[in-house]
Amino acid sequence: MSAVLKGADVVKEMNEAMMAQLAARAAAGQDAPKLAIVRVGKRADDLAYERGAVKRFANIGLRTEVYAYPADIRQEDFLAAFRQINDDPDIHGILVFRPLAPQIDDQLVIEAINPGKDVDGISPVNMAKIFAGDSSGFAPCTAAAVMAILDHAGISLKGKRVAVVGRSLVVGKPLSMLLLARDATVTLCHSKTLDLPALCRESDILVACVGKAKLLGAEYIRPGAVVVDVGINVDEEGGLWGDVDFAAAESIAGAITPVPGGVGTVTTSILARQLMKAADIAGHQQGINGALMRY
Amino acid sequence: MSAVLKGADVVKEMNEAMMAQLAARAAAGQDAPKLAIVRVGKRADDLAYERGAVKRFANIGLRTEVYAYPADIRQEDFLAAFRQINDDPDIHGILVFRPLAPQIDDQLVIEAINPGKDVDGISPVNMAKIFAGDSSGFAPCTAAAVMAILDHAGISLKGKRVAVVGRSLVVGKPLSMLLLARDATVTLCHSKTLDLPALCRESDILVACVGKAKLLGAEYIRPGAVVVDVGINVDEEGGLWGDVDFAAAESIAGAITPVPGGVGTVTTSILARQLMKAADIAGHQQGINGALMRY
Repeated sequence: MSAVLKGADVVKEMNEAMMAQLAARAAAGQDAPKLAIVRVGKRADDLAYERGAVKRFANIGLRTEVYAYPADIRQEDFLAAFRQINDDPDIHGILVFRPLAPQIDDQLVIEAINPGKDVDGISPVNMAKIFAGDSSGFAPCTAAAVMAILDHAGISLKGKRVAVVGRSLVVGKPLSMLLLARDATVTLCHSKTLDLPALCRESDILVACVGKAKLLGAEYIRPGAVVVDVGINVDEEGGLWGDVDFAAAESIAGAITPVPGGVGTVTTSILARQLMKAADIAGHQQGINGALMRY
Repeated sequence: MSAVLKGADVVKEMNEAMMAQLAARAAAGQDAPKLAIVRVGKRADDLAYERGAVKRFANIGLRTEVYAYPADIRQEDFLAAFRQINDDPDIHGILVFRPLAPQIDDQLVIEAINPGKDVDGISPVNMAKIFAGDSSGFAPCTAAAVMAILDHAGISLKGKRVAVVGRSLVVGKPLSMLLLARDATVTLCHSKTLDLPALCRESDILVACVGKAKLLGAEYIRPGAVVVDVGINVDEEGGLWGDVDFAAAESIAGAITPVPGGVGTVTTSILARQLMKAADIAGHQQGINGALMRY
């Protein structure tokens, strides 16, 4: 039986560390960092994520403010409102629910967002930093959540063979770069990869981010391998399934993340941690500017 | 014996295609695209590359202008000059020799360069596009040269296992993304990769971009594999050597690029092709703006 890598354990450790930092911040007279949640319309999954994030951020001691706009807002009106949020010095991070709306070009928002507030890692500037192996930027939260789980479990990456199955710009690609920056040898696999099971079996660590329920079964897993399942697939009865066939994999893998209760559980804490980082950087820059101005 | 994939054959085809396009451009009354070559000081290797590029661009029918600055130019003076080049509508592409000079922060220039003129692919915007698989940007020329050689030789990439040895931001990383966009299954290998020979032998295509003379010998090559050697290493006698031990590899590989006369030969033609693309996009945008202004 493999060790089950539960997201809750990672969340607990991360949140405790953040609460200690926030206490120090408060003692120094600084406001808690604030996240702007930007939403157009009322999509059910956006609202569910929003409720969860608002509650968890409050529990940690972080501020949130929801900026909700009508589903039919004109693009120019939305962009004007977004620019105000972007420029507001009391807002340290911005989370944008996408797709925004049919009449709004998401790409304009991706290009407009202040890279220093882009705690969800959508800006080209942050993407280029991840690509360059520059840790000063913000990674997409799910990719960073995978790294946090591996780190929490004390799994070394240097020299390890890792198969990342799925090449999306929000998970597979940035995760490959984060793993590479830690000296893993990464193979990025996808729908056109030939003999995927054999390739996955060559790997010490298998990360599934495909979005197909139970796609990866026993034949994909080297005995003792670490299996990280990023997939969250909903079946007709509303049940949640990962990309990995957990029942088949559990007896082969050395360690495995569950779904639900694995990677997905950690993403909100990553968002919170990136908000703290954004506020720290902004505070530091303000300090520098203040010092210059007082000079 | 393997087929030797000579850069000269690729260059011939590319240059003929560009000359035909330039003739069509001239017939339409348009000036030839112009490249600004930006240099600080007089480093011997910069001067050598500059002479070669100026001559080859002239042979194709493209314009170049060298902007050379004294080695001790102040950063603010250089940046002011650079901004003028950046804004000059008669300049369609910019090549910057780096590192510029000890007193100049290259990163400022990388961030300042107009992404639409960045024909050498150094801007974060173009890097993010390569990462995203968006072909509207500009790739670093050496990475694009590898793709041009593979395409010219009619080597299909879909589903192929490719080992890219070397993870630099100018070759290994962008090349991995270009290969991935063509549905290859790419493993990015590096100095911390364990059992590199076995991993390379699993690959249909092996790309060496490490910068160590003759590092990859016979034990790295699957019989019949395609070997692309990006390395250009100079020995004490001034001889040029690739990263692959050509003499050992030639009898095993199905096809192999020589050094010299391989990838390096193609990069100037890639630079020229990217300049043509930049001029086309700029011309198209000018056309749109012109149409709007006339409205």
